[in-house]
Amino acid sequence: MEKAIAELRAKLGETAISTDEDDLQEHGYSEWSTVNADRLPVAIAYPKSTEEVSEIAKVCSRYRMPIVPYSGGSSLEANFSAPYGGMTIDFSFMDRIIALHEEDMDVVVQPSIQWMDLNEQLKDTGLFFPVDPGPSAKIGGMVGTNCSGTNAVRYGTMKDWVINLTVVLADGRVIKTRRRPRKTSAGYNLTGLFVGSEGTLGIVTEITLKLAATPEKTRVGVVSFPSIRDAASTAMQVIRKGVIIQSMEILDDVQMDVINRAGGTGRTWKKLPTLFFKFSGTSAGVDDSINLVKAIAKQNKAQSFDFAKNDQEAHDLWSARKQSLWSMLALRKEGSEVWSTDVAVPISRLPDIIEVSKKEMDDLGIFASILGHIGDGNFHESIMYNRHDPVEKERVEKCVHDMVDRALEMEGSCTGEHGIGLGKKESLLKELGVDTIDIMRSIKSSLDPQWIMNPGKIFDFTREVKTVDTSEVESARLTGAKRGDKS
Amino acid sequence: MEKAIAELRAKLGETAISTDEDDLQEHGYSEWSTVNADRLPVAIAYPKSTEEVSEIAKVCSRYRMPIVPYSGGSSLEANFSAPYGGMTIDFSFMDRIIALHEEDMDVVVQPSIQWMDLNEQLKDTGLFFPVDPGPSAKIGGMVGTNCSGTNAVRYGTMKDWVINLTVVLADGRVIKTRRRPRKTSAGYNLTGLFVGSEGTLGIVTEITLKLAATPEKTRVGVVSFPSIRDAASTAMQVIRKGVIIQSMEILDDVQMDVINRAGGTGRTWKKLPTLFFKFSGTSAGVDDSINLVKAIAKQNKAQSFDFAKNDQEAHDLWSARKQSLWSMLALRKEGSEVWSTDVAVPISRLPDIIEVSKKEMDDLGIFASILGHIGDGNFHESIMYNRHDPVEKERVEKCVHDMVDRALEMEGSCTGEHGIGLGKKESLLKELGVDTIDIMRSIKSSLDPQWIMNPGKIFDFTREVKTVDTSEVESARLTGAKRGDKS
Repeated sequence: MEKAIAELRAKLGETAISTDEDDLQEHGYSEWSTVNADRLPVAIAYPKSTEEVSEIAKVCSRYRMPIVPYSGGSSLEANFSAPYGGMTIDFSFMDRIIALHEEDMDVVVQPSIQWMDLNEQLKDTGLFFPVDPGPSAKIGGMVGTNCSGTNAVRYGTMKDWVINLTVVLADGRVIKTRRRPRKTSAGYNLTGLFVGSEGTLGIVTEITLKLAATPEKTRVGVVSFPSIRDAASTAMQVIRKGVIIQSMEILDDVQMDVINRAGGTGRTWKKLPTLFFKFSGTSAGVDDSINLVKAIAKQNKAQSFDFAKNDQEAHDLWSARKQSLWSMLALRKEGSEVWSTDVAVPISRLPDIIEVSKKEMDDLGIFASILGHIGDGNFHESIMYNRHDPVEKERVEKCVHDMVDRALEMEGSCTGEHGIGLGKKESLLKELGVDTIDIMRSIKSSLDPQWIMNPGKIFDFTREVKTVDTSEVESARLTGAKRGDKS
Repeated sequence: MEKAIAELRAKLGETAISTDEDDLQEHGYSEWSTVNADRLPVAIAYPKSTEEVSEIAKVCSRYRMPIVPYSGGSSLEANFSAPYGGMTIDFSFMDRIIALHEEDMDVVVQPSIQWMDLNEQLKDTGLFFPVDPGPSAKIGGMVGTNCSGTNAVRYGTMKDWVINLTVVLADGRVIKTRRRPRKTSAGYNLTGLFVGSEGTLGIVTEITLKLAATPEKTRVGVVSFPSIRDAASTAMQVIRKGVIIQSMEILDDVQMDVINRAGGTGRTWKKLPTLFFKFSGTSAGVDDSINLVKAIAKQNKAQSFDFAKNDQEAHDLWSARKQSLWSMLALRKEGSEVWSTDVAVPISRLPDIIEVSKKEMDDLGIFASILGHIGDGNFHESIMYNRHDPVEKERVEKCVHDMVDRALEMEGSCTGEHGIGLGKKESLLKELGVDTIDIMRSIKSSLDPQWIMNPGKIFDFTREVKTVDTSEVESARLTGAKRGDKS
């Protein structure tokens, strides 16, 4: 390992590789994550170009040293942890727009650009990038987990917005998955394979993204309902009728309380199950969609229908929704943690799974809430709990695992947008079965025969899943509080 | 080979495997295709279930016998040809809807269902399947080539509509790529990898498709322009403004003449470059889009803006567009063939490539036309020529290859929706380079170590591309006229 580090420093410069303890800690542990690894990376590399990443891969490959990519650090399933140590590649110095093709409606970027920064830089072009996960996410990690967000119901997920990728392979070779057409049937869809592969097949160093035309008008509306089932039923009917909406989010009573307590929206909302809508399009199109949604909501006992009065209020309200995880972290008591995870089901099953999961969470008697991208059949459960209380910990784990099992019984998925990482390998195996995972394993082995690319994520080398015992990582946790600054 | 056939007949019944000469001819040759193989399959299998396909794969695998999937037989790049002989699997007896989940807006089907039949069976549900390639295409082949059609500008391509696949692997193992959520980040996107892999990685036997809500209202409009550049510029501006349209097709003057000569629309259209629009949505939404498009078209010197007066006229008009290849085939003289192929470019380059390609085609002095899915940057060139005239053949080949090279220079793709098959292997290599193709080769080898799955398609086992000399296939062609019945 030390030889590899020395070689890379000689090639890329002394500061290109850090072995600073705090740095290792920051890159190897996340307090947002449902689990953490019991090791830290050995070193952190800070490349400035695809060529430098290729050099890093060549050296790591020669020394069989694991390579773990790191961009925003906001993933939730220990996707960037280093359970086998190795070299973490932090793309901090690769955060630029390389080329903007306004007329083609696409942009070429480096992995460490934040999606919100990207949109800020695009704001005068009449174009925007519509995939909107948590505010701190960066494009590299968004590719890795095939993330999505509140706009997915209208615009789809990450895989739908990537035109091509430049990828550094395990042995340092550099490939480009496609040229730059928005549509193609030319050979295997490698772009779609690398998106969502969590850095286990190669390291993405350049991304060409499709952009969308910025809608002429946007309105945000908030509708509250007597029960979570009424809210979920409304959502289903809106989808079934094909009403054009940009976003449709469900928040339970607890989450509305979190928004009230966090302040920032200038209003106090009813502590009731609520749907947040974003309508966008032409002026006539927005009015049309609002009328259709109002009619459906009324049939489902909607209690109130409030609109943001202006763009600022709309922005504040949507930010309140987007920062829900941060708001929960801010409210937590000394020693408590937030377990935040997601599942996805066929859309007709949403009212059922949300109702049962909500009840089971309420029965825990601790602070727990449901919110989610209901138009995609995808929702999140966030539970605040004390990991040091073994009884509480066990009850929370059971509650979460029951939710995942329920989603699978409904022919759903153990994750709609967070990925597998370390945290959901057993669930993935349950979801797809060992033969399907074997195919993934074969593909990985063909591209990364030494298994140095983010090893231990999604699935293991052998058929047995290596789980992480969270009690083993207490020592890491104790010094990990630093990361909380972000929230 | 004979042993394999005898074994399979013993297992699946005598009629499950055909070696009838006409049958082999029909499955091994296509007069629609830009190229054909110089061999035919050895036998045709007619399985009735996934289990039977698995049996076929096991036996073929044991005898290292190539397996070639066949569904609609309408592909254009010899995607279902059998250059190494072997067993063609015809899914004629697997053409059913297995399960319709109206509330989840999805449907589970077998490979041999035609997309138009599927929509006919769905018509009372308020749902439809929006991917609309040539009328005779079946879902299996549509998955294989990642096809699209006129609705792609609104609804995307095949890969965006497949939720999961049941796949029989080379060794007979059966896997399912996903459960049934509309959105997931659980492990590698195997669904997206198999879609577009042209049967070279496994044989798809069951497909779960997303469905869309049928729009309340649909209108078809026809706008003619003084030049193809004016039509293409209008199209680009419509996309750039984010106007909601279901389809936007470009047809040149020659193609409009074909439509007039084929009759069936009840009108005689101007022989001018034309855009066909399909507007759909709510009544207010459709009116809104029409007004926006009218304004843009006027700025680009639109000569006329005609609407279909009723649903029947709209249907007839759209059918005329969809049957353009058939209409051309019907017009051809004794001994002439149609070369029909497609490319895709970044959308700003469309006016340029269409203008130059149109000029080069006109310079050929033979019957040739351009039409295409202009909103996706994807268009088709159809040239009627005499393959037996070596000078004409060479000029046509040069014209087509120049168009493909031009698309690649513009960072485009050698095919937007037809796939690579046998016909475009060299173009694919030019497009993506040998390192990227090597990755595809590695993936294929990992899933199909004996290379028995549709061998010779997309890329070859070695780095050298094996081309097909069309002069070698004359003997096959002579008896191939039978397939012309379809047109």
